[in-house]
Amino acid sequence: MKNELPSSRDRYQAFQARNLKLDMTRGKPGPELLDLSNPMLTIVDSEHYHAAGGNDCRNYGILDGLPEAKNLFADYMDVAPEEILIAGNASLNLMYDEVVRSMLYGVPGGQSPWIQQGTIKFLCPVPGYDRHFNICSVLGIEMINVPMNDEGPDMHIVEKLVGEDASIKGIWCVPRYSNPNGVIYSDRVIDRFAQMKTAAPDFRIFWDNAYRHHHLVENPRDQKNLLDACKSAGVAQRALMFGSTSKITFAGGGLSFLAANKTNMDHTRKYLANQTIGYDKLNQLRHVRFFGDLAGLRKHMNQHRAILKPKFDAVDSVLTSELDGKDLAHWTRPEGGYFVSLDTRPGLAKKVVALAADVGVKLTAAGATYPGGIDPEDRNIRISPSLPGLEEIELATEVLAVCIILASE
Amino acid sequence: MKNELPSSRDRYQAFQARNLKLDMTRGKPGPELLDLSNPMLTIVDSEHYHAAGGNDCRNYGILDGLPEAKNLFADYMDVAPEEILIAGNASLNLMYDEVVRSMLYGVPGGQSPWIQQGTIKFLCPVPGYDRHFNICSVLGIEMINVPMNDEGPDMHIVEKLVGEDASIKGIWCVPRYSNPNGVIYSDRVIDRFAQMKTAAPDFRIFWDNAYRHHHLVENPRDQKNLLDACKSAGVAQRALMFGSTSKITFAGGGLSFLAANKTNMDHTRKYLANQTIGYDKLNQLRHVRFFGDLAGLRKHMNQHRAILKPKFDAVDSVLTSELDGKDLAHWTRPEGGYFVSLDTRPGLAKKVVALAADVGVKLTAAGATYPGGIDPEDRNIRISPSLPGLEEIELATEVLAVCIILASE
Repeated sequence: MKNELPSSRDRYQAFQARNLKLDMTRGKPGPELLDLSNPMLTIVDSEHYHAAGGNDCRNYGILDGLPEAKNLFADYMDVAPEEILIAGNASLNLMYDEVVRSMLYGVPGGQSPWIQQGTIKFLCPVPGYDRHFNICSVLGIEMINVPMNDEGPDMHIVEKLVGEDASIKGIWCVPRYSNPNGVIYSDRVIDRFAQMKTAAPDFRIFWDNAYRHHHLVENPRDQKNLLDACKSAGVAQRALMFGSTSKITFAGGGLSFLAANKTNMDHTRKYLANQTIGYDKLNQLRHVRFFGDLAGLRKHMNQHRAILKPKFDAVDSVLTSELDGKDLAHWTRPEGGYFVSLDTRPGLAKKVVALAADVGVKLTAAGATYPGGIDPEDRNIRISPSLPGLEEIELATEVLAVCIILASE
Repeated sequence: MKNELPSSRDRYQAFQARNLKLDMTRGKPGPELLDLSNPMLTIVDSEHYHAAGGNDCRNYGILDGLPEAKNLFADYMDVAPEEILIAGNASLNLMYDEVVRSMLYGVPGGQSPWIQQGTIKFLCPVPGYDRHFNICSVLGIEMINVPMNDEGPDMHIVEKLVGEDASIKGIWCVPRYSNPNGVIYSDRVIDRFAQMKTAAPDFRIFWDNAYRHHHLVENPRDQKNLLDACKSAGVAQRALMFGSTSKITFAGGGLSFLAANKTNMDHTRKYLANQTIGYDKLNQLRHVRFFGDLAGLRKHMNQHRAILKPKFDAVDSVLTSELDGKDLAHWTRPEGGYFVSLDTRPGLAKKVVALAADVGVKLTAAGATYPGGIDPEDRNIRISPSLPGLEEIELATEVLAVCIILASE
């Protein structure tokens, strides 16, 4: 008499029969997260559309943000109000624009626009965020993979490369709860970023602090401010820091911001004045009125955590019960951010994603977390549990686990 | 006994004593125009944030605009919905981006990116819009002045230049109620734009239709659609048409749009996908819910007309009573748009603007309507009566007239 558990093949076939339609592809906030910001929709009305200084937010003007929005998000980014610029609904656009401006007009401290300097290269800690890589790709910027460890990018490699090669002009970093592997860059790494010698005088760190206040733990770790570290090291212009409220208020209708030292900000404002008369101040006013101050925003993010934490726990609990001790996969238990990063055995990620797709579970394309979509070891899979409900997450993760077992056989 | 009127010098000194503080510098809508759109502020609320197709407008997604926004503004621009893209709050940004994308990536039909083709030139009908010229200036695009007449740019000159010089890649046009001189491009001019031979295969007409539905007359003239004309002439890719609701709803919080043939749109969408995940759909939904359809928007613009017409009449009436028959200045009586364009005798515009400034009346800097800020004849002054109240406009125009008389003495 057979007492065995159903085989992974049997379980996979059972999933096949259920006509599933689950999606864990992208880091979209779920509707219950968005609902938390609904009061913001009507907080600016026909009685309240003036900024504190009297500015009619409906009209033209104010290139770099309402003073009160700059105050709030300067607190958020831990910089001075003159070191921040408040932009439109997409920090991606702000990052793209900053790279393009550097290409076309150069940056302070540089000899000439990047586009006049021949081949330009960026360092890309991997796994990383596909949309960063797309910006390099479309602009013809060569990308060099740099491995990540528990403290951030491997700084030995970073230091060696930027020290030797003046064509390396930048590096993409998500310093807190990195996309996808949830790494919190250590203060030691941040100091090394500030203190390293770069062959290029016009080198820039693109510091995408997308998840700066997106904690999944009650007492988040402290983290050094990159701009402060760069100022101490005498290279204040090295840091370009980005943030947004896309995963705080509305993913499609939030604010984005760029923080940097005054020289960089003046340079950006000068060129930005040719692009626009100003960003949407009504939406800036909505955010300021909704949060009041950083404490208000933090309270709001605690509500986010209460919704997101069980989703991340569900992923971990299913993976643990299915895969623990089997040495088939490693995955992260992030303290914040939007992703779980999972590594299969080498050579299996594409197969796993395809198997899951065949039974109706969409996962981020394997390789998407690497430049050019090529994961040299074909093992990284990014899991995005923010959008689906708990039951869906559990089921999708179970399917993923079964696909991993099957692919590893 | 002296019965003479006070001299212009006496009148000027009297203004001086009054410590005036009037501003007619820029085409900003007045508060009473903005008030008309106040209901839009709260029309998207916690019950209504879904698009017709069910899309949650608060979340990520939809690169080129909500279907219902595309429908409305395709009607507005007289194109098909697949020929339009709905963007952020600034058509200036959309125009800048389109020029930059052409520089970096080239355009359909072109051999290579403009930036790889050596010197690039744009034709600039003058007087024109300073922010168009700034885009060329910052990108190092050479500008060639083209005189305007009552039907649009002098097409003999345009045809000759674009026919001979393949480095001429574009022309800036405000085809309806041109900024500043209020010209409505004739159908004959539009046909010649479509039919002219261009030495550059990648030539583009940047058709900034900013005032398309901004009439000051009850029965506006018809005007041929440039894209239709270009399609008939077999050069559909030549037309890039822009518009916005900056002077319809909120100058700082409106929508902008780009309309072009499908080949151009596909090209733009492809590159735009590297810049952003999508523009603010909540604001698109606000606009669609507020107007309903083009008839609703037209009704709204009739209310604008009722407010703006008396302001334009005031400018004309003061100028007429002060200057008529004196041969000291010519000015426009536009059928729409935002500006009155005034020409002094040659060599006097700067002097007039300085005289007015000295008694507290700010006018747009003389020369601002020309590339590089240089009006070769130093005679054009742009008057913007949209923002101030009627009494202010009358007084400021009186000051202007007195300054013209004084400067001409």
